Amino acid sequence: MKGGLAGLLPCLHWLRTYNRAIAAQDGLAAAIVTLMLIPQSLAYAMLAGLPPITGLYASILPLVAYALFGTSNALAVGPVAVVSLMTAAALGGIFPAGSAEYVAGALLLALLSGLVLVVMAVLRLGFIANFLSHPVISGFISASGILIAIGQLRHILGIKAAGHNAVDTLGALWRGLPATHLPTLAIGIAALAVLYLARAHLRGWLCRFGVAAGLAGNLARTGPVVVLLLAVVVVSLLDLAAAGVAVVGAVPGGLPPLALPPLDAGRALQLLPAAVLISLVGFVESVSVGQTLAAKRRERIEPNRELVGLGAANLAAAVGGGFPVTGGFARSVVNYDAGARTPMAGALTALGLALTVVLFTPLFRNLPQAVLAATIIVAVLSLVDLGALARTWRYSRPDALAMAATMLGVLLVGVETGILMGVGLSLFLFLKRTSEPHIAVVGQLPGSQHFRNVSRFQVVESPTVLSMRVDESLYFPNARYLEDRVAEQVSRHPGIRHLVLMCPAVNLIDASALESLEAIAERLRAAGIQLHLSEVKGPVMDQLRQSDFLDHFGGRVFVSHYEALLALDPETTQRALEAGG
Amino acid sequence: MKGGLAGLLPCLHWLRTYNRAIAAQDGLAAAIVTLMLIPQSLAYAMLAGLPPITGLYASILPLVAYALFGTSNALAVGPVAVVSLMTAAALGGIFPAGSAEYVAGALLLALLSGLVLVVMAVLRLGFIANFLSHPVISGFISASGILIAIGQLRHILGIKAAGHNAVDTLGALWRGLPATHLPTLAIGIAALAVLYLARAHLRGWLCRFGVAAGLAGNLARTGPVVVLLLAVVVVSLLDLAAAGVAVVGAVPGGLPPLALPPLDAGRALQLLPAAVLISLVGFVESVSVGQTLAAKRRERIEPNRELVGLGAANLAAAVGGGFPVTGGFARSVVNYDAGARTPMAGALTALGLALTVVLFTPLFRNLPQAVLAATIIVAVLSLVDLGALARTWRYSRPDALAMAATMLGVLLVGVETGILMGVGLSLFLFLKRTSEPHIAVVGQLPGSQHFRNVSRFQVVESPTVLSMRVDESLYFPNARYLEDRVAEQVSRHPGIRHLVLMCPAVNLIDASALESLEAIAERLRAAGIQLHLSEVKGPVMDQLRQSDFLDHFGGRVFVSHYEALLALDPETTQRALEAGG
Repeated sequence: MKGGLAGLLPCLHWLRTYNRAIAAQDGLAAAIVTLMLIPQSLAYAMLAGLPPITGLYASILPLVAYALFGTSNALAVGPVAVVSLMTAAALGGIFPAGSAEYVAGALLLALLSGLVLVVMAVLRLGFIANFLSHPVISGFISASGILIAIGQLRHILGIKAAGHNAVDTLGALWRGLPATHLPTLAIGIAALAVLYLARAHLRGWLCRFGVAAGLAGNLARTGPVVVLLLAVVVVSLLDLAAAGVAVVGAVPGGLPPLALPPLDAGRALQLLPAAVLISLVGFVESVSVGQTLAAKRRERIEPNRELVGLGAANLAAAVGGGFPVTGGFARSVVNYDAGARTPMAGALTALGLALTVVLFTPLFRNLPQAVLAATIIVAVLSLVDLGALARTWRYSRPDALAMAATMLGVLLVGVETGILMGVGLSLFLFLKRTSEPHIAVVGQLPGSQHFRNVSRFQVVESPTVLSMRVDESLYFPNARYLEDRVAEQVSRHPGIRHLVLMCPAVNLIDASALESLEAIAERLRAAGIQLHLSEVKGPVMDQLRQSDFLDHFGGRVFVSHYEALLALDPETTQRALEAGG
Repeated sequence: MKGGLAGLLPCLHWLRTYNRAIAAQDGLAAAIVTLMLIPQSLAYAMLAGLPPITGLYASILPLVAYALFGTSNALAVGPVAVVSLMTAAALGGIFPAGSAEYVAGALLLALLSGLVLVVMAVLRLGFIANFLSHPVISGFISASGILIAIGQLRHILGIKAAGHNAVDTLGALWRGLPATHLPTLAIGIAALAVLYLARAHLRGWLCRFGVAAGLAGNLARTGPVVVLLLAVVVVSLLDLAAAGVAVVGAVPGGLPPLALPPLDAGRALQLLPAAVLISLVGFVESVSVGQTLAAKRRERIEPNRELVGLGAANLAAAVGGGFPVTGGFARSVVNYDAGARTPMAGALTALGLALTVVLFTPLFRNLPQAVLAATIIVAVLSLVDLGALARTWRYSRPDALAMAATMLGVLLVGVETGILMGVGLSLFLFLKRTSEPHIAVVGQLPGSQHFRNVSRFQVVESPTVLSMRVDESLYFPNARYLEDRVAEQVSRHPGIRHLVLMCPAVNLIDASALESLEAIAERLRAAGIQLHLSEVKGPVMDQLRQSDFLDHFGGRVFVSHYEALLALDPETTQRALEAGG
């Protein structure tokens, strides 16, 4: 990491070489991303249980903040589906839906999330994201997609139906079905159909009509904003709002006032666990998008810097009337494909959205909620990858179990419970996997100084010296297992007077394993057997010298295992060396 | 594990060869342990917040159950200090002190604890105990000892003073000091002094007076029961109970009725987390005592069988009027030293305690609580080992931090919080430690087919092929780190067209790492670089074949790294081979 001001503000680096050509590329990318972000921002705010306009607010200042502090040239931050769902889950249990407290809670959550990310950056805690293994993240995103889609169906049907989990919600939808509002359903289905076709086929059709591939792709990306405008026109002309079609309604014009969210220590403490999870999930998603895009140009992003960038974006969301944000996959790819060269593209996108807020909010008054719901459903269903479960099951059962636990947790209990269940189960299975390392009894290969596993090779075993090779670092997950294996082998070899542990693969002996070694040495001594070590690596020896183990365990540390056997049972060893080769 | 009835009941095994000589040895050990257990059982029941007599109940049936199902020949189960403290902590927040519900809660807790242990045995989940690393257990026991000693001071002072944590309790003691009951204090201090001297010096004094060492040791162990009897005599003669010295009071005579504890699903669910922690701590302690004693005779215990034995003991405690029990260190050593040969010694101890309950309970009426408190204090202070913190700090900082967190948690917040903080921090630091494995860029040793770290050896690097060696299994804690290191090295080597990951030390590639490899391959391809693997172990290749990675990643898997370089950059490789040796 570079120091000084340029180290804190990566933008000082790229601004030095900024010119008109780069600006033109950034500008084009910004225009396309703006058009893409308008419907998404409105929709994800609704998903988070917030007034749709806050989605636009959350796409202005955070983008500027990320442009100043972030390192990815193409990452586009803003509201994303999964984080919006997590926001709704965090706030829903505490604040009444639609209340001013709920909106203030979202600001507080963004503030906490920003602080968590910045603290993680300062303390270099980015590795915590490793707790979220890939199967957990993948299962979490798939299940969230399903949960989100089910939750939005009520807007398509024009009914009220909510539940505590996916099954609950489906039940409520089923019971509410007779009350379906047909004009709303018609708009919803039309929007779903057009959005799906635009996403799946528009680009191909445009190409067939002779539009250049790049332009066709960019035009296809503006499908949602066109659908949105069409819907507003239809609803306004037919006065469908009066006919009972739920619309966004009056939206305050102008930019949001800058202000710190109301601070309440009790509330903050209550929201902190959710803020941590939101930060971690957002960080993992964002870094993986950022790395993928950076690699295409043989660049790289620095994960610790990304923490600062995302933290700044969330702090900006908190003071600018938004809610938690992170880097989105689809919009970042669009940004990249449209030619974004520097984070300036993000700042220009923010400008586009600010103009939208200032000039076009009256348009959104007649925007039907069913169209926003359709936007969400089409976007999130592309996140659902149920095949991943089968693929993971074929590859690794423990990973598939963790994924399944996460999905079931998210669908049947809740978003946070689901992810915690997945993390818990991964850690649990990881510990199980590492708790029984390979430990082999070894003997001398005749005619050589080499020692190999007695169950795989024809080797010579000393009648008085037992040799065991440990094929793993010794630390708390496996320390007691070592005690157990030693006890087992000693009870099977009644004639032995020495036990030599061969440690060429031991990279670490932690305090638990040291205690185990001491217990082993003491127990062996009580049974008239002396413990020795062989082939201990340098750093491990250095650490052992920090304890008094080497002074007290009574045995020797041999540089090679052959040397150990030569010292402890010269007769057998010499004979084996001279035996056929 | 042997199957059939003898597999389930290890006692069938040793009963076959049982004879009068063994019975005599077991009988002597049982007599000594009985005398030792009487004061301890009464005292630990008081520590658990229960009527002292329940301590004796908890030392009858559980011992019989362990004799039937356990595998250790010397382990003596019953109430122990730390588990009694955890019992008090679990029940204290839920039931009013001294109520019938509290006593019933203790039975339910023992039942749950027994079920947890049996379920762990059936599902072979003994490895879960590995979550409790040695520093956490050690810190937990030291801090518990301090907490227990502080908590018992009120009985010595004869005042009422309790707090939510150690600091709180000390404050309450300080404020209560003026109300000290002097006769109680005199008895308490006398008991403390005699017990301390008996523990520290009695054996030596007896030896000096010509008593044989073995007999002297056994006599010294009966010190507490003598103190207890003396105190009863003094209190009865001087009628000190009437003078305000708190005594045990009327104790129901006779054996407890056998009955299932009242079952209440809600309560059970509430107590389950505490029951799990109690089971784990009890199991870890018990296994470590059992292993130590078994090793002295070159025997071994099977941890999974111990789960069954301890589970049976706790279930027996639940139906026999007791509370959670486990194997105790001091009493097991006494049992062993006194010559116990089979678990029959435990059954005979149970008989001795049953006789005590039937015949001698009237004696306990005038037993001062201060003497029980003194028994507890002298016993638990021997558990406190503050030097361990300094020793661990010298040996390993992360382990010392986990130990300190556990101790602070236990002292300042509570028993359960403390152990959970320690476990959480150990897992966290463990993950941090494993999340950044050693990954080296390697080059060819001139004149050889060997490849070594470029920063340690004078080696030849190919201008078009980057070679990286991974010195650790690839799994979720380090998968993203690998992505990051690869991105870093690729950005430093602009000319390369191939990247070969050398995997001789990779024992596992889990689903997270597989995703990372796929992401790496894809990102490299986008940058015009092809990924290859070399020296992949057989089992890892077998697992990779379960996925479609090998078909899609576009590169080759080479048996040796030399072969890879020979295929990808024959010119440089050939030249390096022919260069000086």
